[in-house]
Amino acid sequence: MFIQIFSVGGTIDKVYFDALSEFQIGEPMADELLRQGRVGFKYHVESLLRKDSLELTDDDRDLIRDRVAACTADHILITHGTDTMTVTAAALADVQEKVIVLTGAMQPARFRDTDALFNLGLAIGALNCCQPGVWIAMSGRVFAADGVRKNRLAGRFEAH
Amino acid sequence: MFIQIFSVGGTIDKVYFDALSEFQIGEPMADELLRQGRVGFKYHVESLLRKDSLELTDDDRDLIRDRVAACTADHILITHGTDTMTVTAAALADVQEKVIVLTGAMQPARFRDTDALFNLGLAIGALNCCQPGVWIAMSGRVFAADGVRKNRLAGRFEAH
Amino acid sequence: MFIQIFSVGGTIDKVYFDALSEFQIGEPMADELLRQGRVGFKYHVESLLRKDSLELTDDDRDLIRDRVAACTADHILITHGTDTMTVTAAALADVQEKVIVLTGAMQPARFRDTDALFNLGLAIGALNCCQPGVWIAMSGRVFAADGVRKNRLAGRFEAH
Amino acid sequence: MFIQIFSVGGTIDKVYFDALSEFQIGEPMADELLRQGRVGFKYHVESLLRKDSLELTDDDRDLIRDRVAACTADHILITHGTDTMTVTAAALADVQEKVIVLTGAMQPARFRDTDALFNLGLAIGALNCCQPGVWIAMSGRVFAADGVRKNRLAGRFEAH
Repeated sequence: MFIQIFSVGGTIDKVYFDALSEFQIGEPMADELLRQGRVGFKYHVESLLRKDSLELTDDDRDLIRDRVAACTADHILITHGTDTMTVTAAALADVQEKVIVLTGAMQPARFRDTDALFNLGLAIGALNCCQPGVWIAMSGRVFAADGVRKNRLAGRFEAH
Repeated sequence: MFIQIFSVGGTIDKVYFDALSEFQIGEPMADELLRQGRVGFKYHVESLLRKDSLELTDDDRDLIRDRVAACTADHILITHGTDTMTVTAAALADVQEKVIVLTGAMQPARFRDTDALFNLGLAIGALNCCQPGVWIAMSGRVFAADGVRKNRLAGRFEAH
Repeated sequence: MFIQIFSVGGTIDKVYFDALSEFQIGEPMADELLRQGRVGFKYHVESLLRKDSLELTDDDRDLIRDRVAACTADHILITHGTDTMTVTAAALADVQEKVIVLTGAMQPARFRDTDALFNLGLAIGALNCCQPGVWIAMSGRVFAADGVRKNRLAGRFEAH
Repeated sequence: MFIQIFSVGGTIDKVYFDALSEFQIGEPMADELLRQGRVGFKYHVESLLRKDSLELTDDDRDLIRDRVAACTADHILITHGTDTMTVTAAALADVQEKVIVLTGAMQPARFRDTDALFNLGLAIGALNCCQPGVWIAMSGRVFAADGVRKNRLAGRFEAH
C-alpha cells in the first residue's frame, strides 16, 4: 500500500508563534504523526494550502480536486480543517477509482490532549478497508462523504 | 455503532510504580484514549486479564474466546500484547458474525511517544469498515488475522 | 512552605476553542502543572485576570500590586504573559518582605512541547531559595526583576 | 552561567524496548528536557553510569565524587535514581566551593505524566540561587542534602 497525503491546513496543523503572539497554520503534522504511529507502508506528504477551512475558496477546491484526480496513487488522505470538510469532500465526488479519506482535528496536533493522532489512525484504517469513493473519518466514525455534517456546538461529526 | 472492548494486558497498559521500582500492567487505557479521540459512538471497556502476551495460556485464550462469543455486541475490540496477538486471533477464528479487531502498542500508552492512540484509531477505523471476521490492526495496516506476523526485530507487523 | 499563586493570563494558559475557531486564555494551568510536579508543599491558585500581557493596563497592575501586598503569604508566584512581565515586576518593587517570582511560557502549557512545566519548576526553585524581592524565572535563569528584558526575536529572557 | 550535568541513571532515564519486552535505563534525558525548557545558559551533559540507584556501589559513588571534584565547573547538576539519592549526596559533602544539586523523577521522563521536566526546572532554579553545598531538588522543594529523606510509601521527599 502507498498513500498520497495532501495537507490543506486547518486546526490540525496550528502552531504558536510567540514573536507574533499568534497562532498560524504551520508545517503539515501528518509525517510526524505517522512516524509516531510506526506505520509500515510507504507514503508521501505534500502541502497544497495552509488555510483555515472557512477561508477556502472555490478556486482552492478546484486545485485540490485537480491534484487528487491527476495523482497516480489510488489511496489518498487529505488533512483538512473541520468546518468545511464536507464541502471539499463534495467537490471530490466525481473522482473515479480512488479511495479518498478526509480527516482533521478539533484540537491542534501540537497539543497534549489532541485528537489528531487518533483521527489519523482512523483515516488510515479507512484507507486500508474502504471501497473507492470519498469518506470522512472523524469522531471515531467513517462516514460516506454525502451522509455527514459537523455539529459545531457538540464538537463532533454526525450522520445526517 | 456500539463497540465492546476487552483488554487483556500487554505493553499498551504498562504503568510505572515507583514504590516497587517496576513496571506492571495497569488499568486499561482504552477509555482514556477514546476520550482523547473524541469519539461519538457508544462503547464499554472490560478488563479480562492483565498479562504480558507471552504469559497468556491456553486457558486464558479459552476465556477470551468464550467471552467474545457470548457477548451480544457484533463489533469487538481487543487490546492485547503484541508478541502473541496472532495466536489469540487464531483462537477466535470460529466466532461467527462478529467484526473482531485486535490491536496493541509497541510503546506504552502512558509514554509521550506512543503508538497506542494511533493504533486505537486504526482499529476503530477497521471496526467501522470491515466485514465480519478477525482482523489485526497494527503498523498502520489492517491485516486478515491469518495473514500476518510480528517481525520482532524490525518492530512491526507484516503480511506473510 | 506555603505558596500563594496568582494567574493573570498570558500564553501559558492559552486554550483552543474549536467552536469559535480561536485561541483564548483559559483556566489557570498552575494547579495541573504542580500536580504533575508531585509537589509536597501547600499552595493556593487564584485567577486575577485573563489577559495577554500586551493588554494589561495600569489599573490591572494596581490590582495585582494591591492583591500581592494584601496577601498574608510571604511566598508569591505570579503566572504572567511574557511580553510585559518586567513592567508588572517593576510595579511590585516596593512590596516589602515577600519573595515574589514571576514566570510564564513561550508555548502554551497545553502543548506537548511546552516550556511551562519547566518554567514552573524553575520558579518554585527560586521561591525555595531566594531572598525577599521580585524575581523573574524564565529561560532557565532567575533574574533580579530590574536586570532583565525579553529578547522577542531570540525568544528568550536575557540580563541587561 | 555554565552547568555541568552528570547522569548516573534512575527512573528519569528509563526507556521501553519492545524487542526485549523490558524497560532499561536509556540515554540521558537532561539535554532534551533543557531544550524543552528553552534555557539560555550553556551546559554539557555526560553520562557516568546507567544504573537503578539501588544498584549503585561504593565504587560508583567514589567515581561520581571524583568526577564532580575534578570538574572545573562550579555549578553541577546530577540526575540520579531517587531511592539512594541522599546516600550519593552524603558522599559529595566534602566537595568544596561548588553548588551541587541532585534531582531525578518518580515517573520516567518519556512518560506523558512525568515529573522529570518540572524537577529539572526546580534543580536549575536551585543552581541559580543556592550557595555552594549539596542540595536535593525534589517534590517541589530544595533541601539541604543532610536534611531530607525519601518517603517511599508517600512517593515524595520530606525534611527529616
